[in-house]
Amino acid sequence: MPPRPPEPDRLCGAAAVAAVFGRRPKDVLRLFYTPARRREAGPFCAALAEMRRPYREVGEEELARVAGTTHHGGIVAVVARRKVSALALPLPAPLRMSPVLPVLDGVSNPHNLGAIARSAAFFGCIGMVLTGDPRQAGLSDAAWRTSEGGLEVLSLWSVADLPAALRQLGVPTVAAVATGGVAPEALPPSPCVALVLGNEERGVSPATLAACDHRVTLPGSGRVESLNVSVAAAVLIHALSARR
Amino acid sequence: MPPRPPEPDRLCGAAAVAAVFGRRPKDVLRLFYTPARRREAGPFCAALAEMRRPYREVGEEELARVAGTTHHGGIVAVVARRKVSALALPLPAPLRMSPVLPVLDGVSNPHNLGAIARSAAFFGCIGMVLTGDPRQAGLSDAAWRTSEGGLEVLSLWSVADLPAALRQLGVPTVAAVATGGVAPEALPPSPCVALVLGNEERGVSPATLAACDHRVTLPGSGRVESLNVSVAAAVLIHALSARR
Repeated sequence: MPPRPPEPDRLCGAAAVAAVFGRRPKDVLRLFYTPARRREAGPFCAALAEMRRPYREVGEEELARVAGTTHHGGIVAVVARRKVSALALPLPAPLRMSPVLPVLDGVSNPHNLGAIARSAAFFGCIGMVLTGDPRQAGLSDAAWRTSEGGLEVLSLWSVADLPAALRQLGVPTVAAVATGGVAPEALPPSPCVALVLGNEERGVSPATLAACDHRVTLPGSGRVESLNVSVAAAVLIHALSARR
Repeated sequence: MPPRPPEPDRLCGAAAVAAVFGRRPKDVLRLFYTPARRREAGPFCAALAEMRRPYREVGEEELARVAGTTHHGGIVAVVARRKVSALALPLPAPLRMSPVLPVLDGVSNPHNLGAIARSAAFFGCIGMVLTGDPRQAGLSDAAWRTSEGGLEVLSLWSVADLPAALRQLGVPTVAAVATGGVAPEALPPSPCVALVLGNEERGVSPATLAACDHRVTLPGSGRVESLNVSVAAAVLIHALSARR
């Protein structure tokens, strides 16, 4: 018996749908939208008609059933599951063109994954690494939705053994830690760094930390314990991009 | 008939509960927690016992009813509604001690309000202004929860007529705009600036924009349309704090 194909992704909202039609229209299997989104859906329906694939105007309730959420933004594309390929080591030259390569190691909340992707894409990152940490959030509907197209425009890579990969990467590796690291301005300038972001509760794991060249900490007032990981990621990507 | 007292706030999660007991224990009316949180709840229960106020260990389901959400983090304090006082104009000297004063004008998602408060508190802001824009999110349970204690440690002020207030503020005023502003590094250094953040969809209103001294834009790659407003707020607060 052939293996069952993986469940397709359901991309919700105008930004995510526009991004997938812009990047990989052939992966779109079906489209659903409410009457309020009819105008935006027009060109996408035309593209699907040409590929003889279905699209349909539906009510809010039916769209919520398709999307699996009421946060569907009025338009939902059902899309062949996004491929995540193994990261090539050392990092090939074209992937060193953007100043920061975010590496997510156990970021467990899909909203944080999506938010990091949105910020990374905004600040010009080429791609993002997702590790095999069992806590790491996957490409769920919530992640797609929160990324506002960011997950679509980024290349996505996986690594099985992160500490080994970091040692072979060939660019400086920086772990984001809540305390004990240097401020981003104190890191040596580099055209490209890998920025490792750990789990929301536990941070970067000791083995991963030991494999990193540097540790970076955003100095805080101490009035709240920490920044949200997706906020820290954005502030660090912005600060490190200025250090290239 | 006397006016009905305002509904109390329900503060969820260990960080928010610890912050309110640290700052204004007398405002805590009741406390509920699950057996898993018994140890953390101990000192809070003792404080409440001294004030002859109730606390109770409850099951997950009952706590979700009290909290109005399943995202209660195992502990919920019912607290007298937080006071928001009118902002004094011009800004009194003590309030100019922190480099950035965030001004929220129509930020409609309570998660964004909470996230901005968390980041503002982390980076040492003293307080935050909430305007009378009808779209502006209020101090809802979701906002408290997301702020992880940030809303508790910040002073909160309101202004009725924002453009007029900005002209009388006495510190440079900077509107965050998606396009057409200068990069944060290009703003003249100042010991304190007011940073105006607008609605998620529509941005800062024209009248408010006209009253601001400067416009700031985080330069993006163009690969996604925009940053989330709470992420932009954090990146800007961090960048502007470095310019003082």
